[in-house]
Amino acid sequence: MQQIAMINDRILPYEALEPVYLDRAFYFGDGVYEVIRSYNGKIFALDEHLNRFSNSLIAIGINSIDIEDIRTRVKQAYDEALMPNARIYFHITRGSAPRNHSYSDDLKPNFFLTVTELQDSKQVKKSGIAVSTFPDWRWKRCDIKSLNLLANVLAKQDAVSKGCDEAILVDENGFITEGSSSAFFAVFDNRLQTAPLVSNILPSITRKYVIKAAENINMTVTEESLTPEKAKSADELFIAVTTKDIVPVVRFDGNVVKDGKPGRYTEKLMEEFKHFIN
Amino acid sequence: MQQIAMINDRILPYEALEPVYLDRAFYFGDGVYEVIRSYNGKIFALDEHLNRFSNSLIAIGINSIDIEDIRTRVKQAYDEALMPNARIYFHITRGSAPRNHSYSDDLKPNFFLTVTELQDSKQVKKSGIAVSTFPDWRWKRCDIKSLNLLANVLAKQDAVSKGCDEAILVDENGFITEGSSSAFFAVFDNRLQTAPLVSNILPSITRKYVIKAAENINMTVTEESLTPEKAKSADELFIAVTTKDIVPVVRFDGNVVKDGKPGRYTEKLMEEFKHFIN
Repeated sequence: MQQIAMINDRILPYEALEPVYLDRAFYFGDGVYEVIRSYNGKIFALDEHLNRFSNSLIAIGINSIDIEDIRTRVKQAYDEALMPNARIYFHITRGSAPRNHSYSDDLKPNFFLTVTELQDSKQVKKSGIAVSTFPDWRWKRCDIKSLNLLANVLAKQDAVSKGCDEAILVDENGFITEGSSSAFFAVFDNRLQTAPLVSNILPSITRKYVIKAAENINMTVTEESLTPEKAKSADELFIAVTTKDIVPVVRFDGNVVKDGKPGRYTEKLMEEFKHFIN
Repeated sequence: MQQIAMINDRILPYEALEPVYLDRAFYFGDGVYEVIRSYNGKIFALDEHLNRFSNSLIAIGINSIDIEDIRTRVKQAYDEALMPNARIYFHITRGSAPRNHSYSDDLKPNFFLTVTELQDSKQVKKSGIAVSTFPDWRWKRCDIKSLNLLANVLAKQDAVSKGCDEAILVDENGFITEGSSSAFFAVFDNRLQTAPLVSNILPSITRKYVIKAAENINMTVTEESLTPEKAKSADELFIAVTTKDIVPVVRFDGNVVKDGKPGRYTEKLMEEFKHFIN
């Protein structure tokens, strides 16, 4: 059986396609990923990230990975990169095969990783960011950190087009789930509020450390969904993201949050977070 | 700024990565696709597929494509392939760039296409197939034919593991939306029923032709969602898919549909469908 392929305007025999063109990530987003960062030469929360990665792999039925091999590769690449503050991205896809929704269990998964130097985030942590809301169009298994991220991309781009830095996703019931690539938090008096971990929320590792930091400084923590209306009335807002940990939010859908400056508790939490890093 | 990449166990400079490794399909599934077939040397419903493709591109904000260029490429590749009965798959992704959810408007989209010979489907159309239900985990914009297909993959694989040929997706309210890669139909007396076209349904082109065929043979057509329970009690069931048009369903979640053979109306519709092809 003869097959033909075309890349941009070039026709070639199917057999001449490099395997990467048959990667199931390419056709289905059939893979899972992680983003880890290092602080001053030390990878942060590697065990937690590897554990979540393992959960994601199992959730989509990629069962042949030895997670210790992944640990070795991450460390090896990080050591070679010589970047004290780096973002480490990696994904595993189900493997390369002619396009077909179903797959053979003997496919060999593909591993891909990049290490990129992180820019200093002092300025954005000092000034805070603007966010805007967008419908949460994502699939129903956001607890899996998969390569199906088009809904996140469309939300983020909408935010950027409005001069904002992050999109806050709102579900069909009118509740905030999380950011397009971050967790979302509100502070009311000395109480920290964020959405509970259900299947439409990624179990954010930074979120876990933020909650621990809040408990350390004797804040009350409420895991309860909130509406955009409620968020607008908060004393303080912030997002949490692996690459920058806590980032204050000073504008929400065009409304200035309180006095438009990072809040007192947000700053306390940023200070407290530093204890986890060292 | 030095960057490093790793493909499987090989470390390389980031700059040495081929552009395909920076394709946004790879990180986000950031692209849209079509599957077209030919019957006996003639591409079927090309205008409709190009029109839907254009709608998908616009829906995700890829605005720089001249759809007539795509028509030319599809025809050129098909002519070169010399396959009377072929499946033509193509996708366009937003372009190649370092991983970042947001994107620059000047990215150059990537086009990819394959032409594959289709196997004869007479046997499966005569014997019918078995299907099983699976939760509809897909995102909320299934009207866009995007590369975010992990939910479809997981559903299809579950069906295959149960010895079935297709997964029928059931939403949170207990209603059938469609198959993992097909439209789904039930026949009650001389009435054809299928889910209405809303944002959680792909506007299937084969579906459109099936409805036209049903009207031609004086069936009543009801666009109304149905439950798995209701489907089990149908006189006839079938799926519709570009590559095989109508395929009878003879088992549904382990239950034999009526006498376990393709139904009378299903066969009539298959006959009627042939008029569209020639």
